[in-house]
Amino acid sequence: MAFLMPTFPSVDEQLTYLKKGSAEIIREAELRAKLEKSRATGKPLRVKLGMDPTAPDLHLGHTVVLRKLKHFQDLGHTAIFLIGDFTGMIGDPTGRSATRPPLTREQIEENAETYKAQVFKILDPQKTVIDFNRRWMGDFTSDDFVRLMAKYTVSQLLEREDFHKRFQDEKPISVHELLYPLVQGYDSVALEADVELGGTDQKFNLLVGRELQRSYGQESQVVLTTPILEGLDGVQKMSKSFGNAIGIHEPPLEMYGKIMSISDEMMWRYYELLTDVQVADIERMKRETHPMQAKKDLARRIVADFH
Amino acid sequence: MAFLMPTFPSVDEQLTYLKKGSAEIIREAELRAKLEKSRATGKPLRVKLGMDPTAPDLHLGHTVVLRKLKHFQDLGHTAIFLIGDFTGMIGDPTGRSATRPPLTREQIEENAETYKAQVFKILDPQKTVIDFNRRWMGDFTSDDFVRLMAKYTVSQLLEREDFHKRFQDEKPISVHELLYPLVQGYDSVALEADVELGGTDQKFNLLVGRELQRSYGQESQVVLTTPILEGLDGVQKMSKSFGNAIGIHEPPLEMYGKIMSISDEMMWRYYELLTDVQVADIERMKRETHPMQAKKDLARRIVADFH
Repeated sequence: MAFLMPTFPSVDEQLTYLKKGSAEIIREAELRAKLEKSRATGKPLRVKLGMDPTAPDLHLGHTVVLRKLKHFQDLGHTAIFLIGDFTGMIGDPTGRSATRPPLTREQIEENAETYKAQVFKILDPQKTVIDFNRRWMGDFTSDDFVRLMAKYTVSQLLEREDFHKRFQDEKPISVHELLYPLVQGYDSVALEADVELGGTDQKFNLLVGRELQRSYGQESQVVLTTPILEGLDGVQKMSKSFGNAIGIHEPPLEMYGKIMSISDEMMWRYYELLTDVQVADIERMKRETHPMQAKKDLARRIVADFH
Repeated sequence: MAFLMPTFPSVDEQLTYLKKGSAEIIREAELRAKLEKSRATGKPLRVKLGMDPTAPDLHLGHTVVLRKLKHFQDLGHTAIFLIGDFTGMIGDPTGRSATRPPLTREQIEENAETYKAQVFKILDPQKTVIDFNRRWMGDFTSDDFVRLMAKYTVSQLLEREDFHKRFQDEKPISVHELLYPLVQGYDSVALEADVELGGTDQKFNLLVGRELQRSYGQESQVVLTTPILEGLDGVQKMSKSFGNAIGIHEPPLEMYGKIMSISDEMMWRYYELLTDVQVADIERMKRETHPMQAKKDLARRIVADFH
């Protein structure tokens, strides 16, 4: 049956492709081992990216990690886009200075639909597994909850920078917010994820998945984080509320113009994080291509992704 | 239908009977109001006492609060003895300096049976409602858990003396231990308790019930605490591990002898907490009865409760 196996590129080629535009891999040696095993057995890796259906309008900042998921998909691995319809009701406390208002079931379902349409601008709909964590969390029994919660201590969770700061500042942290990282971690157990992707701000939650898989008797997932993209100003992270974002639904000309307005420095950053152009090619362009031309190419590429 | 109503003693008589041997009532005015309403409507109060089936062998220290439940029963109110078969799997963190090992389902069921047999030495089996919190906690959905946990903050729970100390001392507190007070509180919601009894060390947990009932749209229960009984030495609290306890299963002579060994001071304390003799009668005995005779009477009374 060997002839039916998908043929993966060499492990070194895969690693080079995957490392581009990644912030941290925990741990690279483990990723290498998983890629080797996958290549030897012909079994693709299960690569998880979870998003809460909170902000239905994606901007380019959100696509950095989606593009990393696409890279795994390009290589023949299984891209799992997990919509956190259960966790969405808790609200991810990451980076928050206050408890998030919970979403209603209706908002979540509506946002989930919008999400799917948007992520398929980047991912191949035919090859993407879309899942919802309510599928397993909805069936969680009270005993399952007690068992899951017994696996972490309060201090371990309060070590998180955002929780720690809120705790020190005496800003309330609701008990249910402690559930968030545990449920996100358990999602990796339920999905038997080999790799989980997320922004650098998600590192804590992603590491919980590693721990929980171990304690549920699975091999730990590799955690691969991507940088937080700076907005048009090149200083603050891209965010609608900072007015420095490019929404993926913006009209082509609007998008094109905004990209042309960024600095040369940011242009190369966007090449790294928002295109599939490989590192060696980017280096060559830096030497050989006029920045104005490179910027036009970048703008065309990005517009083409969404229009 | 008024002629079918149970006839309750006057509210003042009831209050006097209930206040004997209680440490604190939160709040007495509310208890009075509930007693008045109960008397006016003929509807008995629902009085809850929860125990985790952890230590199946009761000693006299455990009977102080059981006797208070009996007093409500004597007055015609509904005594609800709640066996925490669900909370037993979490382990009450009260007064603990480390996480309790969870009980197995088998241990819990075995202990629950032993418990029932023992508490009926004090309570009237015909009139006592025995319930198990797995009845509602077992059906708790993941959404129910999120909603319950959203009602408290981490800081509110870490204010508890035992948690606070462990947190300060950097001794681990498992996340699931935070569930304990919330579930105990929710039990009051599920039972629609009018009054909850507990030792003074349970005050925090009992107050959570008040809060949760309010937030689930019920009138808050009254919390009535009873003192922690000192052991034979008259100094430390009665506890098997301190070797100063009288188990309710001990043979009559053994029990009698141990009671005869206590100090006169402790004798009056035991009269207050381990008998139904009323305050006025105890005061008269102090004046009129020889201490040796009073002590013999006490020993006979207590032995008669269990043999």
